[in-house]
Amino acid sequence: MSKTELASGGSGRAALGEEIVARINQLAAISETPEHLARIFLSSEHRAAADLILSWMREAGMAAHLDAIGNVCGRYEGENAGLPCLMLGSHYDTVRDAGKWDGPLGLLSAISCVADLNRRGRRLPFAVEVVGFADEEGVRFASTLLGSRAVAGTFVESALNARDRDGVSMREAMVKFGLDPEHIGAAARARRELHAYVELHIEQGPVLEQKDLAVGVVTAIAGATRLAARLTGMAGHAGTVPMAMRRDALAGAAECIGMVEEFCKTDEAGLVGTVGYIDAMPGATNVIPGMVSFTLDIRAPSDPHRKMAVADIVRRIEAIAKRRDLVLQLDVTHENRTVPCAPWLKAQVADAVAAEGFGVFELPSGAGHDGMAMIDVADVAMIFVRCRGGISHNPAEHVETADADAGARVLLRLVENFRPREASSPSSSRP
Amino acid sequence: MSKTELASGGSGRAALGEEIVARINQLAAISETPEHLARIFLSSEHRAAADLILSWMREAGMAAHLDAIGNVCGRYEGENAGLPCLMLGSHYDTVRDAGKWDGPLGLLSAISCVADLNRRGRRLPFAVEVVGFADEEGVRFASTLLGSRAVAGTFVESALNARDRDGVSMREAMVKFGLDPEHIGAAARARRELHAYVELHIEQGPVLEQKDLAVGVVTAIAGATRLAARLTGMAGHAGTVPMAMRRDALAGAAECIGMVEEFCKTDEAGLVGTVGYIDAMPGATNVIPGMVSFTLDIRAPSDPHRKMAVADIVRRIEAIAKRRDLVLQLDVTHENRTVPCAPWLKAQVADAVAAEGFGVFELPSGAGHDGMAMIDVADVAMIFVRCRGGISHNPAEHVETADADAGARVLLRLVENFRPREASSPSSSRP
Repeated sequence: MSKTELASGGSGRAALGEEIVARINQLAAISETPEHLARIFLSSEHRAAADLILSWMREAGMAAHLDAIGNVCGRYEGENAGLPCLMLGSHYDTVRDAGKWDGPLGLLSAISCVADLNRRGRRLPFAVEVVGFADEEGVRFASTLLGSRAVAGTFVESALNARDRDGVSMREAMVKFGLDPEHIGAAARARRELHAYVELHIEQGPVLEQKDLAVGVVTAIAGATRLAARLTGMAGHAGTVPMAMRRDALAGAAECIGMVEEFCKTDEAGLVGTVGYIDAMPGATNVIPGMVSFTLDIRAPSDPHRKMAVADIVRRIEAIAKRRDLVLQLDVTHENRTVPCAPWLKAQVADAVAAEGFGVFELPSGAGHDGMAMIDVADVAMIFVRCRGGISHNPAEHVETADADAGARVLLRLVENFRPREASSPSSSRP
Repeated sequence: MSKTELASGGSGRAALGEEIVARINQLAAISETPEHLARIFLSSEHRAAADLILSWMREAGMAAHLDAIGNVCGRYEGENAGLPCLMLGSHYDTVRDAGKWDGPLGLLSAISCVADLNRRGRRLPFAVEVVGFADEEGVRFASTLLGSRAVAGTFVESALNARDRDGVSMREAMVKFGLDPEHIGAAARARRELHAYVELHIEQGPVLEQKDLAVGVVTAIAGATRLAARLTGMAGHAGTVPMAMRRDALAGAAECIGMVEEFCKTDEAGLVGTVGYIDAMPGATNVIPGMVSFTLDIRAPSDPHRKMAVADIVRRIEAIAKRRDLVLQLDVTHENRTVPCAPWLKAQVADAVAAEGFGVFELPSGAGHDGMAMIDVADVAMIFVRCRGGISHNPAEHVETADADAGARVLLRLVENFRPREASSPSSSRP
């Protein structure tokens, strides 16, 4: 947070940030091992964390329960009981050797906001619900967004047969946890019950820090295409095959990597491309690689842009392989649509940011979030909070207390000023 | 072998090639497992192969014995007993999952040549010795050229403490094999005992095949420098870090790989550069690699040329790392001097090639050979024999019988026409 922001923001509610950070630390103590934070779906840590979060929800004046898939759900009634809700939330599972902010910051900020309303006896013309999703990261069963998919009603039953690394199926793990795998459907919510879904989350990237901003307005959760490439040339002795006679698969892959980097760097619409994995066979110092496998992860804030970029990159890889006489196998292994934040809702987030005295800065989310599932049951928006160095999925993940407070104040302002879509003015709903 | 070569070469001695190939197959049957050829130093296969080779040596009219490190040594006396020798040889150990020609072709060709002299009762004004080196590949104790180093008197005693993957030391393995590790020095030969060392070997590269030649005259065993490079940038989320803010270690490594390829391709003096191993950490599809390790193998037929090239490549890697804000660690892990073939001896090889009706084509050896050790006790020359597709260290390694015969005829012609250095004319000894 810059000095300007500190001066313009009210300091009266710094207690929100302090409460949130204290609870972040409490929650982080609930871990598979004390050295490396890991809170995995349907584990005893999941249970302990859920109980703690439920207690905080109740303390904040909410009715709270564990739903059919293990999400923690709190409800703060509006002016009348049974009104449709504005749903806030994030996840409380973690990756292995995780940071403590990814997920919990959004969930605990939402609880603190409701607690603040409750302390002031403030009731709104809609209910506020807070959901802590039980599985977003997908560590245990290699399937992400299980918690939010259950709420959105898009949980796929076959996921119950997935097994963890110890061979335990999700079905068995649910039973052991005390949940009934036959009743996951009970977690699903109807569109008419929700005005919108809003998630606060750490940015997990370095942009806000570079812009010297505590918070950002998310435009969309970028869609992603993942590809697996394999180039096959001819292995050979590093000493005996002249350069001109080589069909070096790694030299070919290196050219592809350089091309992807250059292609994305020159794009001006937020395209990012990453080669994260590479394997050169046979992998000996003195052998020309005959086969190289690598992955490609391409994301953009709009689907047409991403699809055009992927097609263009694929054509260029094909050309490189052809020119080098390498055999190319290229498969799409994963594809996620872009989830745009609803313009009417994003406008209210921007208004809340401005009202709290921060500069309004829009950025896409390159990472996936529960909104990717929630879009099937509600309009979605997101608030990003700056994290140090953009580092995430790492114990070094860090958020300043002042930034946690800034995020919570924006979220609270959004909630207090929230107008459902049908009530929001045409001027606020412009894209 | 081209039709022209077949027409010009005498067909009367095709039996040499046939005998050699028959023995290649007999020897290939002596393997750790029947599926994958592996004949490892100081194993029971080493012993069985040695016994078979000793029997062939004796059959060829040689006095034969196993020396202090397990090399098989045969001696065919000259016109008088006790004359200095022309030493021929190659190795009879293999890599794992080896081809059957790498090593044995040279050894068995030499034995067949002596057998031919012996059948004709031909004695020369020098002795001919044939050595089958027991360890060239260095598979078992991660140290190459153990056999030829013992003969050259450069065996390093500390190698006896090296342990194989089962924890057995070379010292223990020698004792179990029936050799006395305290007497390896007895294998060493004095320079005055040798006129020269000549090795016939498969090319292990594709150049002779491309030139449509059965045999080639080796100019030098190229020196090699191996480096281990590590680039450290910053790992990050593949979706959240904009291209301009990345310190992608793999993109940096890819640029280095492309640079090495381009640098060596534009060199016109036989420089080759290979990145054979690469590892990107953490190695996940959706994470920007924060650290990449790769190896670099650089060879050239002259040491000054190689050293200049290495220095130039290192400077360029440093520049790439600096421009990309990557931390570079670069270490030389291995360095081999170039072993030039002695001009006077190489000239005699060329004369023998021409006399057998083949075109004289000179090429460097990019691979290492026992000559790298033998240079310390004698002048060295090599004859290369074409192998299919340049493939070696692979079960697909193959030599046509006609080419084996061509190689043996050249070797025999060389032996019969051999003049020791002091006797060779000044015109033949020009570089």
